[in-house]
Amino acid sequence: MGSKSDWETMKRAADVLDLFGMPYEKKVVSAHRTPDLMFKFAEEARARGIQVIIAGAGGAAHLPGMIAAKTTLPVIGVPVKSRTLNGVDSLLSIVQMPGGVPVATMSIGEAGAQNAGLYALQILTLSDEALTQRLEKFREEQARIAIESSDQLD
Amino acid sequence: MGSKSDWETMKRAADVLDLFGMPYEKKVVSAHRTPDLMFKFAEEARARGIQVIIAGAGGAAHLPGMIAAKTTLPVIGVPVKSRTLNGVDSLLSIVQMPGGVPVATMSIGEAGAQNAGLYALQILTLSDEALTQRLEKFREEQARIAIESSDQLD
Amino acid sequence: MGSKSDWETMKRAADVLDLFGMPYEKKVVSAHRTPDLMFKFAEEARARGIQVIIAGAGGAAHLPGMIAAKTTLPVIGVPVKSRTLNGVDSLLSIVQMPGGVPVATMSIGEAGAQNAGLYALQILTLSDEALTQRLEKFREEQARIAIESSDQLD
Amino acid sequence: MGSKSDWETMKRAADVLDLFGMPYEKKVVSAHRTPDLMFKFAEEARARGIQVIIAGAGGAAHLPGMIAAKTTLPVIGVPVKSRTLNGVDSLLSIVQMPGGVPVATMSIGEAGAQNAGLYALQILTLSDEALTQRLEKFREEQARIAIESSDQLD
Amino acid sequence: MGSKSDWETMKRAADVLDLFGMPYEKKVVSAHRTPDLMFKFAEEARARGIQVIIAGAGGAAHLPGMIAAKTTLPVIGVPVKSRTLNGVDSLLSIVQMPGGVPVATMSIGEAGAQNAGLYALQILTLSDEALTQRLEKFREEQARIAIESSDQLD
Amino acid sequence: MGSKSDWETMKRAADVLDLFGMPYEKKVVSAHRTPDLMFKFAEEARARGIQVIIAGAGGAAHLPGMIAAKTTLPVIGVPVKSRTLNGVDSLLSIVQMPGGVPVATMSIGEAGAQNAGLYALQILTLSDEALTQRLEKFREEQARIAIESSDQLD
Amino acid sequence: MGSKSDWETMKRAADVLDLFGMPYEKKVVSAHRTPDLMFKFAEEARARGIQVIIAGAGGAAHLPGMIAAKTTLPVIGVPVKSRTLNGVDSLLSIVQMPGGVPVATMSIGEAGAQNAGLYALQILTLSDEALTQRLEKFREEQARIAIESSDQLD
Amino acid sequence: MGSKSDWETMKRAADVLDLFGMPYEKKVVSAHRTPDLMFKFAEEARARGIQVIIAGAGGAAHLPGMIAAKTTLPVIGVPVKSRTLNGVDSLLSIVQMPGGVPVATMSIGEAGAQNAGLYALQILTLSDEALTQRLEKFREEQARIAIESSDQLD
Repeated sequence: MGSKSDWETMKRAADVLDLFGMPYEKKVVSAHRTPDLMFKFAEEARARGIQVIIAGAGGAAHLPGMIAAKTTLPVIGVPVKSRTLNGVDSLLSIVQMPGGVPVATMSIGEAGAQNAGLYALQILTLSDEALTQRLEKFREEQARIAIESSDQLD
Repeated sequence: MGSKSDWETMKRAADVLDLFGMPYEKKVVSAHRTPDLMFKFAEEARARGIQVIIAGAGGAAHLPGMIAAKTTLPVIGVPVKSRTLNGVDSLLSIVQMPGGVPVATMSIGEAGAQNAGLYALQILTLSDEALTQRLEKFREEQARIAIESSDQLD
Repeated sequence: MGSKSDWETMKRAADVLDLFGMPYEKKVVSAHRTPDLMFKFAEEARARGIQVIIAGAGGAAHLPGMIAAKTTLPVIGVPVKSRTLNGVDSLLSIVQMPGGVPVATMSIGEAGAQNAGLYALQILTLSDEALTQRLEKFREEQARIAIESSDQLD
Repeated sequence: MGSKSDWETMKRAADVLDLFGMPYEKKVVSAHRTPDLMFKFAEEARARGIQVIIAGAGGAAHLPGMIAAKTTLPVIGVPVKSRTLNGVDSLLSIVQMPGGVPVATMSIGEAGAQNAGLYALQILTLSDEALTQRLEKFREEQARIAIESSDQLD
Repeated sequence: MGSKSDWETMKRAADVLDLFGMPYEKKVVSAHRTPDLMFKFAEEARARGIQVIIAGAGGAAHLPGMIAAKTTLPVIGVPVKSRTLNGVDSLLSIVQMPGGVPVATMSIGEAGAQNAGLYALQILTLSDEALTQRLEKFREEQARIAIESSDQLD
Repeated sequence: MGSKSDWETMKRAADVLDLFGMPYEKKVVSAHRTPDLMFKFAEEARARGIQVIIAGAGGAAHLPGMIAAKTTLPVIGVPVKSRTLNGVDSLLSIVQMPGGVPVATMSIGEAGAQNAGLYALQILTLSDEALTQRLEKFREEQARIAIESSDQLD
Repeated sequence: MGSKSDWETMKRAADVLDLFGMPYEKKVVSAHRTPDLMFKFAEEARARGIQVIIAGAGGAAHLPGMIAAKTTLPVIGVPVKSRTLNGVDSLLSIVQMPGGVPVATMSIGEAGAQNAGLYALQILTLSDEALTQRLEKFREEQARIAIESSDQLD
Repeated sequence: MGSKSDWETMKRAADVLDLFGMPYEKKVVSAHRTPDLMFKFAEEARARGIQVIIAGAGGAAHLPGMIAAKTTLPVIGVPVKSRTLNGVDSLLSIVQMPGGVPVATMSIGEAGAQNAGLYALQILTLSDEALTQRLEKFREEQARIAIESSDQLD
């Protein structure tokens, strides 16, 4: 994430990975304040065995796109809700990437962070049959909760 | 894609996959006109050996999100530029997914379609060393073209 | 509605139907978490005697449009105010339906939910003379309250 | 409709009604240039046997809401694409009605006009079994065309 | 104004008129709930000696434009800040009038209401030399306060 | 107006004044390129017998607000459609004036320019009975044209 | 700044200048309430030895652009977050200057004010080697804080 | 600039520098396609004697902000008009920089590019008396052209 203040949002991604027991690193790597560190991180990620990078940032959110420019690993971008423009600036800065360097953009804020964790897992299902089954269980559980919440209305 | 008219945009994704010799199916599956077909397609995709689904749609672009609701495969959404709102409606309809069901959203229009193809390939690099190297070559080629274009300015 | 949290908004629709003694079902049916249930609900609605469907949802609000895709009953969509974008995303996801599958979209939030209830009743007036008269009384009462509020300014 | 120039958009609604052989009146009734005529039209509509009113307008599109204020018939609003703001102004002026006076808003432009015609028919299905069946046939035909367009991609 | 809840905003206009001792009427006249009253009010305004009409409304704010359609008196519109869209809907509904029927639109919210009062006075200066001088004094006083506030920073 | 290129839009205001035989001056006075001239113009306007000032500008459209800051005459602002943002920037720069210095803002582009001319006339009706009658005739003529255009649809 | 209420935002610029011991004046100079003072200030600034002007304003934020129109000193504009539109109006009014009169626009609100102070310093580095080194130290300190905040996550 | 296609816009900056005989380099340096080159360029710029950097980019326009992160020279950002969103994405990506790393943002498109050239010159006036006088002449010339264009209206 680009700043420690993004953690409140981004911990939703960590929660998902924790729930599935998936190991991960969490770091503040700022595109604007620690650009060299960011490049080093992105450049070395694949060799270090990292499979997916989740990058959350707000405002002129350059972190996801710049990391994507320095690796061919799949990068997932989370637009953090910004103070003045509610994350519209974050969303457009992340999603409107030019042809050639993709960032997989999630929804703004906490739901987006949660989905970033889930999407990382969905990518990993391609080589992990057990994870597929666990994610499908998770979906069934989500459905069950929705149905129960419906019954509680009455 | 949701409509045949989306093909002009979405063929950019196909071009990328063709360039890398990656096999794919292309289909019009409309969330609103053929909802049952869409569900059937999404439900059976993993068992049929599909690894990544690229879904492009415009306006109230429900296709990517509804397919994502019916599979745990990674789904990539491309907001097609719409006639009246330039794709802002498509973008928000695709990207603002609730927590639980992620869609990896690309930029609006042709650049987004190209990036959807590339992102699918980047996902597949996790289990394909040769593809990783080919994508890195592709990136170097992009860099070379950019540098050459700079020289042509003088 | 798409989520239990939408009830705070959607109960305004229920209040209107209660006021007019019109029977209704209220349910959480999530487009993304319970897609099959949603299709089954929409598919069977007409045969079960339902006349109008009111669907409220927020963010990438696919519920009204997907229900509309599965029935020829009139569907009324209510954009629920979303956390990050104030319901602009909900509004565009609901209203920008492609030609062929209409959703009758109301205003964002509680006023829209109240109006969904009233619009359902207005549809039913076509075959219910007494309801017409009761709605016209309701309008007169609204007018009376507006006029009284004007007098209270002085 | 509010102006003769809206006809290019609104004829899509007429085309749908023609296709189903549903009788209708078409009129320019301007909220701003012929306000009294508009009120008279709305006031008398139910007694004249009109069942649904489709009102299309652009810019500060007051026509649908003002007609809705003068009748308890169901009113369907079509935001016509405006010259400067692409219909965002038309959409917000039509959809953001206050609680008490609903307008069923369709998507901006021609798709919205087509859907207005279809929605009017869907309302009328509540008392017309044959129309229900014809609309369901129409939906099946739409699905068939979508499927065929998919086959034509190959 | 269109609703009693608009008074909190619109009293700023009244405050200005009170400050200058300018007589005025204040009324809730709702375009949607009391349309006939609104038309009657607008139609009779000039004959009753009213010189300027200030109309404030929020959301699908049809009041200023509809009053303008029924009188050739100068109408001043104030977009009241709306609950969901911060008054963007109110602003566009008021300002985007078609050619032929002008509304003089002020800024959103309280500043706009205050300016509506001042603009009404500025119109009246055309036939009131004393008022001109008092308004110029008011401007000088504003300047003096701004300059003093600057000194207070140190 | 702020630039000669605004004339294409602003001539609609001149056309209205010509139609009613109302004398006027037309000038390019740029807030940014000729600021002193602008101030001089605004400062001297009332003494020179000018009654209403119509100011059209695009982009960061400061002209109407700055003229309004230098005179207590009624100023009418016309947001000229801008190249990149369709006049949204012009509109917000003109309409969002702070409390104390009002600008009467019209709709974006040609309709707004036409309305600026009409609004200037409506202001002048307060001391010109004959003009009132001519404006009412003009409105009747507008109504007649609208009604005729309706008949031409059939 | 345009109003005393902007001080809460603009003091961030002052904090930066204080931190670097750079002398400055702080003033309320309102484009709309004290236009002559504003022109005098801008006109005399260079001769008085001022090197950079930071102008913060909200809403129809004309201050930065009008000062820029009256001096060839570099002007830095800060869009103050506005009450109704979150500073989108301030941003567009400041940034969308026509060709010929540039304003260096910063981000909306406090971050923008801080950056205005830093940008003024960066301009001054062109003739101040020591300041360059101090700014580079400041950047290193920012990086150190970011890295530390990362360590604190664990 | 970020891409050769930006040259059509950015040559307006070059035109200004040519007009004043100010030497400059023009380069395509893509944040996403040649990130290392971009960093090297920014890092070495001051030592190579560069005084001001003008960076133009469109869409998720990361170039200006990333260059600003790697130098304490003043960076001027030009939002290039983008294909789908008219440069709103470019503008927000450039202007909404977090506190600590400023970018001086100009208006969208050609006017912004021209202003970037002028702003660079205005920065350089701080140590170049002759340039100051030439810029003031340029401003007078602009004023003269505006006044002449006014005379041509008659």
